Amino acid sequence: MVISTQNYIDQIVKGNITYLSRAITLIESLKESDKTKAVELLNTCLPFSGKSIRIGITGVPGVGKSTFIEAFGSHLTALGKKVAVLAIDPSSTVNKGSILGDKTRMENLSKDTNAFIRPSPTGNSLGGVAKKTKEAIILCEAANFDIILIETVGVGQSETLVNSMVDFFLLLKVSGTGDQLQGIKRGIMEMADLIVINKADGDNIKKTELAKKEFESALHLYPLKENNWFPKVTTCSSLKNIGIKEVWNTIQEFLKLSKSNNWFQKNRNNQNTNWLLQSINQQLQDDFYKNKSIVLELDKLLIKVKNNSITPFEASEILIDLYKNKS
Amino acid sequence: MVISTQNYIDQIVKGNITYLSRAITLIESLKESDKTKAVELLNTCLPFSGKSIRIGITGVPGVGKSTFIEAFGSHLTALGKKVAVLAIDPSSTVNKGSILGDKTRMENLSKDTNAFIRPSPTGNSLGGVAKKTKEAIILCEAANFDIILIETVGVGQSETLVNSMVDFFLLLKVSGTGDQLQGIKRGIMEMADLIVINKADGDNIKKTELAKKEFESALHLYPLKENNWFPKVTTCSSLKNIGIKEVWNTIQEFLKLSKSNNWFQKNRNNQNTNWLLQSINQQLQDDFYKNKSIVLELDKLLIKVKNNSITPFEASEILIDLYKNKS
Repeated sequence: MVISTQNYIDQIVKGNITYLSRAITLIESLKESDKTKAVELLNTCLPFSGKSIRIGITGVPGVGKSTFIEAFGSHLTALGKKVAVLAIDPSSTVNKGSILGDKTRMENLSKDTNAFIRPSPTGNSLGGVAKKTKEAIILCEAANFDIILIETVGVGQSETLVNSMVDFFLLLKVSGTGDQLQGIKRGIMEMADLIVINKADGDNIKKTELAKKEFESALHLYPLKENNWFPKVTTCSSLKNIGIKEVWNTIQEFLKLSKSNNWFQKNRNNQNTNWLLQSINQQLQDDFYKNKSIVLELDKLLIKVKNNSITPFEASEILIDLYKNKS
Repeated sequence: MVISTQNYIDQIVKGNITYLSRAITLIESLKESDKTKAVELLNTCLPFSGKSIRIGITGVPGVGKSTFIEAFGSHLTALGKKVAVLAIDPSSTVNKGSILGDKTRMENLSKDTNAFIRPSPTGNSLGGVAKKTKEAIILCEAANFDIILIETVGVGQSETLVNSMVDFFLLLKVSGTGDQLQGIKRGIMEMADLIVINKADGDNIKKTELAKKEFESALHLYPLKENNWFPKVTTCSSLKNIGIKEVWNTIQEFLKLSKSNNWFQKNRNNQNTNWLLQSINQQLQDDFYKNKSIVLELDKLLIKVKNNSITPFEASEILIDLYKNKS
């Protein structure tokens, strides 16, 4: 069945999940024939977007991301909020798998009529996957979702991408072997607005409190964020539903501050500008590197650069000249 | 007087400082007419380059960078090493000033026949300034300098640029008000192979030891570096020449490790490849953004993106189409 753009819009703004789901599938489609419609759909949804709170949630496998999102999401829907869960999964670009493929991971939330869980899109590159997620946010917002949770595994570049599309960045951790700070990827802690130490229950409570202190002093190493927010550390037990309310309270505190000092809107504007500039840059590079004579010459010049028989700058000029004359 | 390229080379490989100095001036020249000769000179010097140890030194104003380089450089020349001091000064791109303009900052070193001090080049962009410094390294190496110190002020992006051209990255600090870790620019501490806390003398000794402990535990927050080196913290008094030897010992330890596990050469190869790719990227962007119709359209589209009437991705496609048809 072919659905008209107007039909999509009518149903999406009513909050029809089935249509929202199909619309996301359409924008995720790699078929050239779907492209025009996808752009049209996005443009029509754009004026209805922007009103949600976008929250990034990251943490390495084992910290209990699913259980946390289950508890946190359910807390939000109980408050009357509509919650969408999206994901950026670096592994999905490789093996077409997905951290969110299995909805049973969030059993209650996936049955909740006020929640919408969407697996990570597949794609050829992490940037491409992130672009689809950014566009899915627009559709979810048009469908009146109040809060969008964007999940990713804390293994590298995907956090930077998530951070470039959210209002608030939450890092999920567990207390470890007394060396809990080890192994955090460079840069991730600096992005966090809130570190939540999960599994603060049973025998773990003492260790969690220690970890909290350790993280707090670690955060003191960094200068105040541009928005004047000082990152916080809290503990929670997703299983026992302890400390979940406090996470939401902290986020509200953050929103109050960043809306009052206009950082909220400024950040979103900057994010959009950056997406535009990065997208231009990406397209310029794609066009350059897919040029066959460039590929051939680049390999030769890389060897010369390695052998110290040409400087990287001269090699680059040769390639640019070649590109301009051939393209 | 016009000096032939062969004449330059002959004198440079003999270690003639006057010719080295002139050659650097030539590669720093912004005149189009100097360009061919500069490239020729660099290419001829390239086979003689690569044999030095390149050390980046950074620290905010007030930590005593000049005094440290004076003491450290003199220690190295006393060991029979030839030492060149180059600089990347972000301020020089703006006001044509230079942190190294005043050679009296390093009185002894500037008189030392085994030392060569070169002020920061001026340029239109930090990237451009960094490029000149990277090329100056080649010339200094051809002139048989054993150790190249590349100085920068610890205020942001310039450290990343220095880090992309050195073998070892040293962060200079002083003990502060008990909150010494505050105010370190995000990312800089992560780049450091060694943190040296300067001014460990007189009343300052106790505070310095405390700061050392604090930095050591801070460094534990980060995972092991790719080269298996665990960053160290030492203290020194540049004024009293205490702890300077230990800095050099630590660097030698680092070199032993990174040469034995082949990281040293691998890092240099990666750096060269990155300079090539970045240089291509920079030139592609320069060409795009200097296009007049692009500039005009970009401004309009940025407003539309801000008003949520177009997605950043669509805006980027419009601009790329425009660019391809006009260029």
